[in-house]
Amino acid sequence: MQAIQVNRARLKQAMETISAVGATPRGGLHRLALGDADKQARDLLCAWCTQAGYPVRVDRIGSMYARRAGRSEGDPPVLIGSHLDSQPMAGRFDGAVGVVAALEVMRTLDDHGIATHLPIDLVNWTNEEGARFQPPLLASGVFAGAHALEYALSRQDSAGLSVASELERIGYAGAHAAGFPISSYIELHIEQGVVLEQARATIGVVSGFVGIRDTRVSVLGENVHAGPLPMQLRRDALVGAAQMVLAAQEVGLAQSPDARVTVGRLSVPSDSHSIVPGRVDLVLDLRHPDAASLDALQAQLQERFAQIATRLGLSVQFEPYWNYAPIVFAPTLREHIRAAARMHGYPCLDLPSRAGHDALNIARVAPTAMIFIPCLKGISHNESEYASDEDIAAGADVLLAATLAAATQ
Amino acid sequence: MQAIQVNRARLKQAMETISAVGATPRGGLHRLALGDADKQARDLLCAWCTQAGYPVRVDRIGSMYARRAGRSEGDPPVLIGSHLDSQPMAGRFDGAVGVVAALEVMRTLDDHGIATHLPIDLVNWTNEEGARFQPPLLASGVFAGAHALEYALSRQDSAGLSVASELERIGYAGAHAAGFPISSYIELHIEQGVVLEQARATIGVVSGFVGIRDTRVSVLGENVHAGPLPMQLRRDALVGAAQMVLAAQEVGLAQSPDARVTVGRLSVPSDSHSIVPGRVDLVLDLRHPDAASLDALQAQLQERFAQIATRLGLSVQFEPYWNYAPIVFAPTLREHIRAAARMHGYPCLDLPSRAGHDALNIARVAPTAMIFIPCLKGISHNESEYASDEDIAAGADVLLAATLAAATQ
Repeated sequence: MQAIQVNRARLKQAMETISAVGATPRGGLHRLALGDADKQARDLLCAWCTQAGYPVRVDRIGSMYARRAGRSEGDPPVLIGSHLDSQPMAGRFDGAVGVVAALEVMRTLDDHGIATHLPIDLVNWTNEEGARFQPPLLASGVFAGAHALEYALSRQDSAGLSVASELERIGYAGAHAAGFPISSYIELHIEQGVVLEQARATIGVVSGFVGIRDTRVSVLGENVHAGPLPMQLRRDALVGAAQMVLAAQEVGLAQSPDARVTVGRLSVPSDSHSIVPGRVDLVLDLRHPDAASLDALQAQLQERFAQIATRLGLSVQFEPYWNYAPIVFAPTLREHIRAAARMHGYPCLDLPSRAGHDALNIARVAPTAMIFIPCLKGISHNESEYASDEDIAAGADVLLAATLAAATQ
Repeated sequence: MQAIQVNRARLKQAMETISAVGATPRGGLHRLALGDADKQARDLLCAWCTQAGYPVRVDRIGSMYARRAGRSEGDPPVLIGSHLDSQPMAGRFDGAVGVVAALEVMRTLDDHGIATHLPIDLVNWTNEEGARFQPPLLASGVFAGAHALEYALSRQDSAGLSVASELERIGYAGAHAAGFPISSYIELHIEQGVVLEQARATIGVVSGFVGIRDTRVSVLGENVHAGPLPMQLRRDALVGAAQMVLAAQEVGLAQSPDARVTVGRLSVPSDSHSIVPGRVDLVLDLRHPDAASLDALQAQLQERFAQIATRLGLSVQFEPYWNYAPIVFAPTLREHIRAAARMHGYPCLDLPSRAGHDALNIARVAPTAMIFIPCLKGISHNESEYASDEDIAAGADVLLAATLAAATQ
């Protein structure tokens, strides 16, 4: 491995230039997928890549690929990149860092006259955020075969405009197949958490994705008038649900830092100030990097919930809802990333990703890994999102070394 | 006082006859205000009263009055009765018992050739339930000046039909003034609670209405993604709200049997399984027969809620919502009822009403009291609602004696 550094000034300039496209007055970014700002950002990326000698292809779901040729042009490329779309009134680093750094990696290889065995493709995935068009991770899902192309093209925004018609309008309805063989995928992204910041680490070697297990929980008691019946005789489903929310919190904290336990949806169908709730519906969201621990967490909480219900004269029903198994990234790529960080002297640590990224889809079809860099206080999807120039450059250095390792094999 | 008993057979027969109008297959009643069944029940009551020699008047909001003349016909009458409308798929006793018993009281006075100083008016209030037309206690509210007549007439059901047009359609758009001087009001009703049943008492001497104090509570934390941020760093408004629900339950139970504390409405605006709730809105409903205790209860709970918020790094906001001061019934009428129960040897006890009744409105304009009789397990607004023939007859006996005491003064 060679400790090649990317060009800091050029990287910073590129970040500033692309951040101006869809910039908000308070230093954030509003660049919804396939809107006018997204088109401008795509055009800018296309111009940069083309001018640098990396021919751009666009696939049928609008994802952009820019190729730096390899010695063995027939082999599947190493894919690097991320996404240029943003959440509404969000930050300038989520996604863009990974795309701009990928371009800088290819330019730096050119600067140093380094040829790779495999070709390298930069990618800008369409509609990672899922803010304008649901679901998120749309184009990478098509790439990996998780979504049919027609399904993805038919998605509509709240105004009834489809992905297909908006791709057509902005000139990114491409002809390339959405999905092709790749040898590996590496994505650089801000952490959107505080693990790196708290550990004073610059580089996160992402171990994979936590598993997500969602269960619909219904707590059943008896609707009665809030007045006549003595409180002792009530079967108040909301009192039961409140105990369950606190049990979930307690169990989650006890398995810190690995577990995340959340009740983010809770509703009371009777919805009257004068009716003791006879039913409460909630969703229990469990996240853990280890599959067996996720199973154990679910079993433990369902048992606690059942005990609470029994004690209060209530009943409780469970219905499986979402279930994503944990994903473990390719060990070889993770070792490339770890070795790169060490070579550069960047403090690094292993951590799982707890938010969705396109790498979640791509890991289904190719060896995949991610590099995280810190973002201030973990704030993201917010105009005050911030990552330092130094950390972005460090991330790009590591992306370069890991890509080189993957592409020369 | 004379221990005159009502005619059990005639009372039972009248209850059975009127219960057949709007009867459900499972022994309940579906007789929504101003619907066809309500018209039939009104027609039946009108025929009974007219045949017994009690001329019927109908006021502009459709309430019916049937008069048994007094010696001093110019004086304000003693008003007795209740309502014939029901909740959807409800029971046959809620309301009807008070109307049918009032008729039986007047008939029994005739049987015994008893003349009273004051006239006695039977009343059937329009739309007590508020099931078809909101708000409940509609006509008694007009009678007492709480609602303008035009407001009440303009109320619409879910199909857009107004009270005015439905009164016209069923022939009960009367000409009599809605509101006139009365000397007192006495209403017999099923308890809809379990106080009498548990105490094995036949007669409840209703002390008044509990006060109701509702507060909108907003618990404010921070919306964050359920994944990346460590649980320790969350400011989860739902965890705070859950602790508040349990504190409300604890404080309410500690002030048993007088207090009722209920959270019947609670919502999570972010409503996403993957977002830690940054805001929860709930309504805290407090009921207590004593005004000072209600104030203290509210202060105590708001302090507890504020402590919980502070401990969890949240904030909490309070906004007054509903506020009904407790009502204390006329001591003389209550003593008439108590004396009547003792004279007949019916076990009785004092208790507040914890549900709304037309007497709540009438107490604003005249000396008012209520008599409760037990209903099985406190079940009401349900087809399985049940009161025994013996208890209904005992209630009618007490209504007779109390009415006689009020009408002879």
